[in-house]
Amino acid sequence: MIIVMSPQAGPKDLRKVKDRLQELGFGLHLSAGVERTIIGAIGEKTPEIIHSIEAFEGVEKVVPILKPFKLASKEFREKTCVQVGPVTFGGERIVVIAGPCAVETEEQLLATARRIKTEGAGMLRGGAFKPRTSPYSFQGLEEEGLKLLQTASAETGLPVVTEVVNPRDVELVATYSQMLQIGARNMQNFTLLREVGQAGKPVILKRGLAATAEEWLMAAEYIIKEGNYQVVLCERGIRTFETATRNTMDLSAIPLIKELSHLPVIADPSHATGRKSLVLPLARAAVAAGADGLMVEVHPTPETALSDGPQSMNFTEFNGLIQGISPFVQAMGRKL
Amino acid sequence: MIIVMSPQAGPKDLRKVKDRLQELGFGLHLSAGVERTIIGAIGEKTPEIIHSIEAFEGVEKVVPILKPFKLASKEFREKTCVQVGPVTFGGERIVVIAGPCAVETEEQLLATARRIKTEGAGMLRGGAFKPRTSPYSFQGLEEEGLKLLQTASAETGLPVVTEVVNPRDVELVATYSQMLQIGARNMQNFTLLREVGQAGKPVILKRGLAATAEEWLMAAEYIIKEGNYQVVLCERGIRTFETATRNTMDLSAIPLIKELSHLPVIADPSHATGRKSLVLPLARAAVAAGADGLMVEVHPTPETALSDGPQSMNFTEFNGLIQGISPFVQAMGRKL
Amino acid sequence: MIIVMSPQAGPKDLRKVKDRLQELGFGLHLSAGVERTIIGAIGEKTPEIIHSIEAFEGVEKVVPILKPFKLASKEFREKTCVQVGPVTFGGERIVVIAGPCAVETEEQLLATARRIKTEGAGMLRGGAFKPRTSPYSFQGLEEEGLKLLQTASAETGLPVVTEVVNPRDVELVATYSQMLQIGARNMQNFTLLREVGQAGKPVILKRGLAATAEEWLMAAEYIIKEGNYQVVLCERGIRTFETATRNTMDLSAIPLIKELSHLPVIADPSHATGRKSLVLPLARAAVAAGADGLMVEVHPTPETALSDGPQSMNFTEFNGLIQGISPFVQAMGRKL
Amino acid sequence: MIIVMSPQAGPKDLRKVKDRLQELGFGLHLSAGVERTIIGAIGEKTPEIIHSIEAFEGVEKVVPILKPFKLASKEFREKTCVQVGPVTFGGERIVVIAGPCAVETEEQLLATARRIKTEGAGMLRGGAFKPRTSPYSFQGLEEEGLKLLQTASAETGLPVVTEVVNPRDVELVATYSQMLQIGARNMQNFTLLREVGQAGKPVILKRGLAATAEEWLMAAEYIIKEGNYQVVLCERGIRTFETATRNTMDLSAIPLIKELSHLPVIADPSHATGRKSLVLPLARAAVAAGADGLMVEVHPTPETALSDGPQSMNFTEFNGLIQGISPFVQAMGRKL
Repeated sequence: MIIVMSPQAGPKDLRKVKDRLQELGFGLHLSAGVERTIIGAIGEKTPEIIHSIEAFEGVEKVVPILKPFKLASKEFREKTCVQVGPVTFGGERIVVIAGPCAVETEEQLLATARRIKTEGAGMLRGGAFKPRTSPYSFQGLEEEGLKLLQTASAETGLPVVTEVVNPRDVELVATYSQMLQIGARNMQNFTLLREVGQAGKPVILKRGLAATAEEWLMAAEYIIKEGNYQVVLCERGIRTFETATRNTMDLSAIPLIKELSHLPVIADPSHATGRKSLVLPLARAAVAAGADGLMVEVHPTPETALSDGPQSMNFTEFNGLIQGISPFVQAMGRKL
Repeated sequence: MIIVMSPQAGPKDLRKVKDRLQELGFGLHLSAGVERTIIGAIGEKTPEIIHSIEAFEGVEKVVPILKPFKLASKEFREKTCVQVGPVTFGGERIVVIAGPCAVETEEQLLATARRIKTEGAGMLRGGAFKPRTSPYSFQGLEEEGLKLLQTASAETGLPVVTEVVNPRDVELVATYSQMLQIGARNMQNFTLLREVGQAGKPVILKRGLAATAEEWLMAAEYIIKEGNYQVVLCERGIRTFETATRNTMDLSAIPLIKELSHLPVIADPSHATGRKSLVLPLARAAVAAGADGLMVEVHPTPETALSDGPQSMNFTEFNGLIQGISPFVQAMGRKL
Repeated sequence: MIIVMSPQAGPKDLRKVKDRLQELGFGLHLSAGVERTIIGAIGEKTPEIIHSIEAFEGVEKVVPILKPFKLASKEFREKTCVQVGPVTFGGERIVVIAGPCAVETEEQLLATARRIKTEGAGMLRGGAFKPRTSPYSFQGLEEEGLKLLQTASAETGLPVVTEVVNPRDVELVATYSQMLQIGARNMQNFTLLREVGQAGKPVILKRGLAATAEEWLMAAEYIIKEGNYQVVLCERGIRTFETATRNTMDLSAIPLIKELSHLPVIADPSHATGRKSLVLPLARAAVAAGADGLMVEVHPTPETALSDGPQSMNFTEFNGLIQGISPFVQAMGRKL
Repeated sequence: MIIVMSPQAGPKDLRKVKDRLQELGFGLHLSAGVERTIIGAIGEKTPEIIHSIEAFEGVEKVVPILKPFKLASKEFREKTCVQVGPVTFGGERIVVIAGPCAVETEEQLLATARRIKTEGAGMLRGGAFKPRTSPYSFQGLEEEGLKLLQTASAETGLPVVTEVVNPRDVELVATYSQMLQIGARNMQNFTLLREVGQAGKPVILKRGLAATAEEWLMAAEYIIKEGNYQVVLCERGIRTFETATRNTMDLSAIPLIKELSHLPVIADPSHATGRKSLVLPLARAAVAAGADGLMVEVHPTPETALSDGPQSMNFTEFNGLIQGISPFVQAMGRKL
C-alpha cells in the first residue's frame, strides 16, 4: 500500500507511522517530495490493519495496491465452470434459467416447468422463501414450495435453483434443490454466505442493489473461503436515481467481472428492468456483453402472479425470448 | 389505488381489469377522459395484489394511495418512547451512545466505558459480531465480546447495545445486552428482523445503504408486526456517487421520518462520514435536525483499532464532541 | 392529473383546491373514500400550474397522468430518421461515429479520419471546444480545430459531428460541421438547446450524468420546439456509486426511449466505461439492445492523447471493434 | 502521482512508461515489489498529461497525489470573505437570502422584499431567467424581471442575487444585480463560469446535482482563474435514489468544503428538500454544520406561485424560520 502524508505532517507524525508499519512487518520505501512524503509499504496484511493507518495524525490517504479478493480473482485461477446436473455455467452453452418469481401452486409450477423445458430452458427457478419489502406480502410456500420444486424437477429433468434466506434453512433447501441462490438483499449477509459455502452445493450469488463489483467479489470470496468454488455471479440491476426502470442494469459489470475473476456471470433482465417489454432487448444485450446465462421470470398468467407480475413473461413471450436471443448466442459463437 | 389505462387500451382491456378488481373485492370509480380512462379502486389489499394489476394489458401505471406501512405510521400512533434501563429514546434527553466499533480487549472496552460514562454518554456500544466486507478482516470476539460488554455494563451502569447478525444468535446476544442492533447490511434481512421482533428487546434499526425512507419503515414494520414496538431508527448515511465521505448522511430523513412515523430516530455521524474531523459538525447538525440521539465511535487509540480507526474519536475528541453539541441540545430545548 | 388529499384535510381545504382547479379551467371528478378524497382533474396545463397545486394545505400528493414531453413522444410521431449527408440515423444501417476525443493536430486528425473511413465508419467525431472539469486541462483548438475537421471531412467524405458549448458559437460550429453535439454536461443548458434548435442542423444530444430518461426527452423537446426534429439521442453512461467504471452505462434506456419516443438513439461505450477493454463488449451489447449507432473514441496513439487516452482505441483496436460488432449487427437484421 | 504497474507488465512496458514520464519532465522513484512495480513521479503537470499515462500498456492505475484545485484550496489562502454591499459572507453574521423562486409581478416581489427585510433577511433573491426542465414551463420575465429586482433593491436597500443562464446575458444581469448566481444545472457550463469570472461581480455557485465536492471546487477554480475570488458555494442537494425528498441534502459537504477551501459556503434547504415542512429543520442543521448563510424561497401565496410552490414558505412561515434558527445561530457563536 501507499501512504500519502499531508503537507502539514511533521517529522514526528512520519516517525509514528513508520514505527507502526515496521512493527506490523511491512518493508518501507520513502519518497520525500517538496510538499509531502510518500511511503510505499510492502507486505500483505489484513484489510483492517491497512485501514487503521489512515487514523494516524498527518496521514492524508492510504492507497491499497493489492485487490482485496484473492480466491475469486483471475490471478488465482483462470476459469471456473460450475456444473449443476447436466448444465454447465461458463461452458459453450448459455444457460437459460426460467420460472415463476414465487412457487404458488403445483399446477402453476408444473405447467411452467414443462413449457420452459420444451422451449429450451436449462434450469427451473422458483421462490419458496420470498424476501419481501412488506411483511404483508406473500412470503412464499416454504417447505411446501420446495417439495413442489422437487416434483417439477423430477418430472422434467430440469435442475432447480431456489433462494435461501435463513442460515437455519440452508440444509433444508439443499435437500430439495440442485443449486442455492443468495438474493440481492442478502449479498452481504455474511452468516448466510458462510453457511452456503459450507453446504457444498453450487450457488448463484446475486449482486446487491448498492454493491460495487469489488464488494460483490468479496461476497463470493466468503463462499469460496469455505471451500466452495461453485459460485455463479448474477447481475440483476443496481439502484440509481432513474425511476423509469425498477433498477439500472449494469451490463459493464459482466465483462468487468470476467477481467477480474474466474467465476461465471449470468444476468437477470426481469429484476433489472421490472418491465416485461424491456426483458428481451436486455437479454440480447447481456448475451452480447458476454453473459454465461440468463435468468428470467415466466408465469402462466402474469396478471394473477402473487409476486412480480409486471416483469413476468407468459409462455408465448418466453418463446419469443428464446427465438429472439438465438442469433445473438450464435454471434457470440455459443449455443443455447 | 388509482389505475391509469394507456391511451391504446381498448374496452376489452378495461373490462378485464375491472373484472379482476371486482373479483378482488375493490369498490370502483371510473373517470373516462378524452385520451384515457382512470379507475379509482377502493379497498385495502396486500401489496402484491395491488402490484399485479400492473401486469394487465392496457394498464399504464398503478398509483398506490395508502402508505404501505401501518404499525410504524404516525396515523397508527402519535409517539413512541423506547426505554432501555435508565435511558429513554424519544424523551426530553438526547441519548449519546458511544464506544468502539469492535470489542477488542477487556482493557480497551473498560477504559472506553468508564471514560464515556464520565463524559456523559448514556449507553455503551461495541461490536462482538462484526459484518465485514472482507472475510479476511477481524470478525469480532463473538460470545467472548458479549461477556466483556456485560462486564463493562455491570461496572459502569451503562446499558449496552450490540449488533446481531445471525438469527441463531438472537437469544444469545439478548442474554448479554440491553438492546439489539440491526446493521445497515441487514436492514432487509427479514428473517433476522422477525426474530429480533420476537426477542422482545429494544432494537436499533440502521438504515440500509440503498434504502428509501419508506423501505426503512417497512423494515421496522417487520419488527413491530411481531409485537415489538421498541424500535429506534438510526440514520447512518446512504450510498451515493460522492467518494469524499464514506457515505452521504441524509439528515432530511430525520424530520421526514418524524412526519411519517412515531418511532424515535438517532444519527450515526461516524459511519455516515468515515472521517473523524466531520463527526462533530454532523453531530451538531443531526441534533438541530431533530435527532433523538447520537451514536459515535470512540476508541482509546484509534490508530490501533481493529476496525474503523479513521472515523473513531479518542477520549479527548469525545470530550470535545460532548462540549460541542451541548449548546445545540439546549437550542433544541432538550437535555443531554 | 390526480390530486390525493391527506386524511387530515378538511372540507375547507378541499373547497380551496377545487376552486383553484376550476379557476384554472380543469374538469373535476371527485371520489370520496373512507379515509381520503381523490380529485381527478382533466385538462392540459403547463407543468408549473399542475405543480403549484401541491402547495395547497391538505394536498398529500399530485400525480400527473400525461407525459410532460409531446413533440418528442411516440404518440406525436411514429419514427424519425435523421439524415446527415449520406448517413441515416434510424434506418437500416447502424452508424459508427469514430474519432479522437479532441482534435490535436492535422496529422492526428487526418490519419484517424482516413483509417476509420477504411474500416467502415460512417462519420468522424472530434472535439474543438472541450468542456473539461479542470481549467488547467487542454480546452481544445477552437476554430482552428473546426477547420481541421472540415479539411478531414472534405478529404474523406465523412460528415463531421463536433460539440458546441457556447450559445455564441453555434453559428460558427454549424459553418464547419454537418452535425452539432450537445455534451452531457450541457444537456440542461436550455439556452444552448434553444440556439441549437434554431440552427437547423442535425444534433446529437448526449444524456446528462444525472438525467432521467424523461428529463432527457424534455431536453430534446426544447430543441424540437424550435422546429428542429433532427435530434439523435446518445446514451453515454450515468453517474452511480460504482467507481470501477467511469460511468454506468444504462442500456435499458435504449429500448425504453424507443418505447417513449420516435427519435433515433445511439450509444457511446467509450465515455460510459472509461476503459478501453470494455468498449467492445458494451458496443456489442448496445447494438443488441437496439441502438441505431455507436460513437467511439479512436486515436493514432492513445498514450499521448491530450484527452481521454485510457478509453481511446488505436487503429488496430478499432478494426477489432468493427469485426467484433458485425455478427451482432447482422443478428439484429441490420447493416453496417 | 503514483503509477501502479500491473503484475503482468514486462520490462518493456515499464521502460515505455518511464521514458514518457522523463520526456514530460517528471522526477522518478521506483519501488520494485515482489508482484508489481510502483513508480512515484514528482512534478506538477496538467491533468490530461497525468491521465494519459493510464493509457499505457501494463499500467494498472494512476493515483494523483496533489488536489486538482489550487486557487480554491485552503493551501492557497486561509479564508475569503465575500462582500456584497452591506452583507458579508464568511464573517460573523449568517446571511439569510430570501425571495421567490421566480419574479412574477411587481406586487409579488415588493411585498416579499419588504417583508423579508422586516424579518431580518440580508439579501433578496428572485429568478428572472429560469432554467426549467420543461420548455412549456414559465421561463421568467427576463429583463423585465431584472428591473423589478432593481426596484425592490432600491426600495428596501437589500442587495439582490439572481441567476444568469446565458453567457450573453452576463453583462445585462450584472447591470441590475449586486450578485450573480450560477444554478446547479450550469455548474459545469464552463463558458458561463469564465464569463462570470470576468464580470467581476460576486457569485453564488450552486453545486451540481451529480457533482462531487472536488468537481464543485474545480468549477469555482474556473471563476477564480479569471481573477474573481468573490465566490460563495451553495449546497442545494444532490441526486440520489431517494424519492421522498426532491434531492438529498449533503450537509457533510459544508464542513468538508471548509477543510478543503477558503471560500464561504451557504445552504439552500428549499431546493434540497422540495418540501416546505422540512425547510426549517434542515436550515437549523445547515447552520449547525457550519454554513455561512441560507437561501430560502419565500412567496406571498405559494399556492399560486409559477414555480416551486410546494417548497416556498409564506410570510408567517418565514418568520417562523428566522425565529427557529436564531438559537442555533447563537449556539454557533454567530449572529443573524
